[in-house]
Amino acid sequence: MNSTLLGIARGPRLSRGAISQIRPSRLFSFTQWRAIRTTEMSEQQLAAVKINRERLWRDLHETCEWGKGERWGEGATDIGMARLTLSDADKQARDWFVKTTESLGCKVKVDAMGNIFAIRPGKQNSAAPTYAGSHMDTQPTGGRYDGILGVHAGIEVLKTMKDNDIETEYPTGVINWTNEEGARFPISMVSSGVWAGAIPLEKAYNLVEVGGGKATQKSELERIGYLGEFEASHKANPIGAHFELHIEQGPILESSGGEIGAVEGVQAFRWHIITVKGRDCHTGTTDFQNRSDAMLTAAKLIVHSHNTAAGLGCLASTGILTLKPGSTNTVPGFVRFSLDMRSKDDAKLQQLEDILKTEFAKIAAGEQVGLVNAEGVKGRGCTVEWQLDTDSPATRFHEDCVTCVEESAKDMLGINSRNLVQRMTSGAGHDSVYTSRHAPTSMIFVPCRDGVSHNPAEYCSLEDCGNGAQTLLGAMLRLTFKIEFLYQFASD
Amino acid sequence: MNSTLLGIARGPRLSRGAISQIRPSRLFSFTQWRAIRTTEMSEQQLAAVKINRERLWRDLHETCEWGKGERWGEGATDIGMARLTLSDADKQARDWFVKTTESLGCKVKVDAMGNIFAIRPGKQNSAAPTYAGSHMDTQPTGGRYDGILGVHAGIEVLKTMKDNDIETEYPTGVINWTNEEGARFPISMVSSGVWAGAIPLEKAYNLVEVGGGKATQKSELERIGYLGEFEASHKANPIGAHFELHIEQGPILESSGGEIGAVEGVQAFRWHIITVKGRDCHTGTTDFQNRSDAMLTAAKLIVHSHNTAAGLGCLASTGILTLKPGSTNTVPGFVRFSLDMRSKDDAKLQQLEDILKTEFAKIAAGEQVGLVNAEGVKGRGCTVEWQLDTDSPATRFHEDCVTCVEESAKDMLGINSRNLVQRMTSGAGHDSVYTSRHAPTSMIFVPCRDGVSHNPAEYCSLEDCGNGAQTLLGAMLRLTFKIEFLYQFASD
Repeated sequence: MNSTLLGIARGPRLSRGAISQIRPSRLFSFTQWRAIRTTEMSEQQLAAVKINRERLWRDLHETCEWGKGERWGEGATDIGMARLTLSDADKQARDWFVKTTESLGCKVKVDAMGNIFAIRPGKQNSAAPTYAGSHMDTQPTGGRYDGILGVHAGIEVLKTMKDNDIETEYPTGVINWTNEEGARFPISMVSSGVWAGAIPLEKAYNLVEVGGGKATQKSELERIGYLGEFEASHKANPIGAHFELHIEQGPILESSGGEIGAVEGVQAFRWHIITVKGRDCHTGTTDFQNRSDAMLTAAKLIVHSHNTAAGLGCLASTGILTLKPGSTNTVPGFVRFSLDMRSKDDAKLQQLEDILKTEFAKIAAGEQVGLVNAEGVKGRGCTVEWQLDTDSPATRFHEDCVTCVEESAKDMLGINSRNLVQRMTSGAGHDSVYTSRHAPTSMIFVPCRDGVSHNPAEYCSLEDCGNGAQTLLGAMLRLTFKIEFLYQFASD
Repeated sequence: MNSTLLGIARGPRLSRGAISQIRPSRLFSFTQWRAIRTTEMSEQQLAAVKINRERLWRDLHETCEWGKGERWGEGATDIGMARLTLSDADKQARDWFVKTTESLGCKVKVDAMGNIFAIRPGKQNSAAPTYAGSHMDTQPTGGRYDGILGVHAGIEVLKTMKDNDIETEYPTGVINWTNEEGARFPISMVSSGVWAGAIPLEKAYNLVEVGGGKATQKSELERIGYLGEFEASHKANPIGAHFELHIEQGPILESSGGEIGAVEGVQAFRWHIITVKGRDCHTGTTDFQNRSDAMLTAAKLIVHSHNTAAGLGCLASTGILTLKPGSTNTVPGFVRFSLDMRSKDDAKLQQLEDILKTEFAKIAAGEQVGLVNAEGVKGRGCTVEWQLDTDSPATRFHEDCVTCVEESAKDMLGINSRNLVQRMTSGAGHDSVYTSRHAPTSMIFVPCRDGVSHNPAEYCSLEDCGNGAQTLLGAMLRLTFKIEFLYQFASD
């Protein structure tokens, strides 16, 4: 085993852009075997390998029989999903995954977090596999595409490689990550997090299901037979590269006419809990001058967070707000709300936070900040407290992987693809955030109708599912090709 | 019985200001009796009759032993109240009320709503009594002054009249109204409402206690022995005039240096439930342009309601806000909030509502209205629905009663009383709203510390309690005097 090569395949020891600097001439010699080795394929041949869209669609909706949710339309597949992680339905989907990938010639490994790695051998198996990975669990009122599409597309890639007798130099595979949603055991991306060494195994094991039940993530892994023997670790079980096809879960591709997003990274986000303290008073007996109205103040802060974030090209959102005491004729003296701030740039996000920390205090005290407090009556003021809840720095995916996605999408979409392929930043977290810490990674986004996700009516068309799987295939073949040359180059 | 005179005493047939137009010369002849008749008292004599502040304070805190709540300070009386209507503690307070007023020579009547009327006979008893009325029930986390002060001050007035051997020409008395708070059986001022014919008796009887218990207002009246034999009706049991001493429950007197508020009426208020509908979306994946953010929209509407109300000299407040789905990383598609709008002028209140109905819709659609939507990013818009919950038109108290309060307060406070006595509008509802529909009525406000009420720490000083009781005495004597002259005038 050549550790230098493995190092390259695992990514972290390879500086960004290092692969792209290598430009050897390609080898087009044919082997004696019936199979076409990717090292022997031309660009044209690569582009000509086509996934089977109808098969992908059929397979996907077949496994969605397990864990069906709410019906939202008249069509046969217009039914949401409620496949919580490690449920009986999830076990059925997992069993299908294992059986199907084994039938495609894969070796299947289950790790201590129940992550399933299906590995299709390459000509050589001394390097870590290039994977397509995502998840088959869903939200309690989720849809059929979030996560599920990425796993199915990976399997479709394996089927397509088999159909075309393609042999990769090094292994490829598909991963089904456990509990990406965090909906049942409340940490999202928890199992890729354990794999990456970012979340302790015991912490993950001891997560208790939400809703009052007593099951833990470990007890449920045991119960359904997916507490695997392999260590959940990027060291013990390295990934060569990781591609994740996913619905965008947002409206940007759809509203801009894009077909494929080549995802460069994931936005940074910081979640704060903002507490505004004023004083309860009677709505009828207290004039504006004498109020410390925590609700009015919170409303001003929410509006101001939006305006300030918009000015800096960031996002700011409030998804939770509670108040006390909660009576029509009592001005609330206490309001607490969530503030979710995001930017693809860590420094920009910090700038937004610094500004808001200063200006929230001023606004609460009744000072005019921009247009806020320019109208209305100044009261007695409120206080504002910030509490950091979650801090997730920006993730940058590997430029070579992003390029592979982009080139693959352009091949598929043809020469007029300028607007159809877009470089994007993911707004949401995915397992790829954790894989990117230890392996070259990128994601592929496809549009979903109206940007709706985490909802039974989440929808991605047969065409878009197929586009995504086709791009995934091309990206994996391209990267495999690059890695093969690298190996060859390094062996020279 | 002279129906014209009774009509005068009952109020509704007497046009506003009618009494004040009558200006007979006063009679200062003395009777043979030991008692001083109010008709025989000079202005100086009226002003010289003093209530006993310490006795009032002692009595009030003595009855507050029944239904004690939360301690908030070190002092002996720094304890809140939790005397829910028709509880055992309320029964103890009622029993004390009956025993005490009977010992002062009153005849006590309990009506079908448990309202207790203690009547001190006059020289003649053909006219309805002039009452001091308020309530002894409290909020679950209430204080010692809201309502309780008014009843105790009425009893102190009776004691003072007895001490000074004052005999009124027509009867006087004190009323303890049942369930003014609406905290246990959820309609406030419900029993004066039944008396006024504004709330059906059966509706009041069938109110079930909040918090999951099964008791009704009627079953609890029966249980504690206060389901009285008299009809709860302004027709069967008329009131000659009604004065209510109450803590202001707001900060206006205190912050402006006022000592007595002569209450001219009660603000109109309209309560709406505003529903903002947008669409749930992911906070990270959805750019501002593509959002229908119900929370951001609601925040803008709340700020705009404040600014618009301030511009018109009205009040607007939001005390309740709920949203769905309620997750840090989901932009809420649904927000519902209360909008409590008040004005002392019905037309002004309607104007505010008309403006907000038009402008809320524009703001939700993303249009700029004033400074709202002048910054930030225009999204896809939300919709706004209004639902009227409560409509309470403005109440005007009787000018003669207001004048009696004002004159009495000026007598007490001396010649430099210009700023100390203020004409005010009550922001909150009181039993006097209902009595004013069928009898000349006014209220007397005294400051409470920081305007705090409905809170254990509600506080009115011995001095201010005494000022209120003294003004109440003076107002009742003055009105009794006026009525006596009216009777005399009408009999001429």
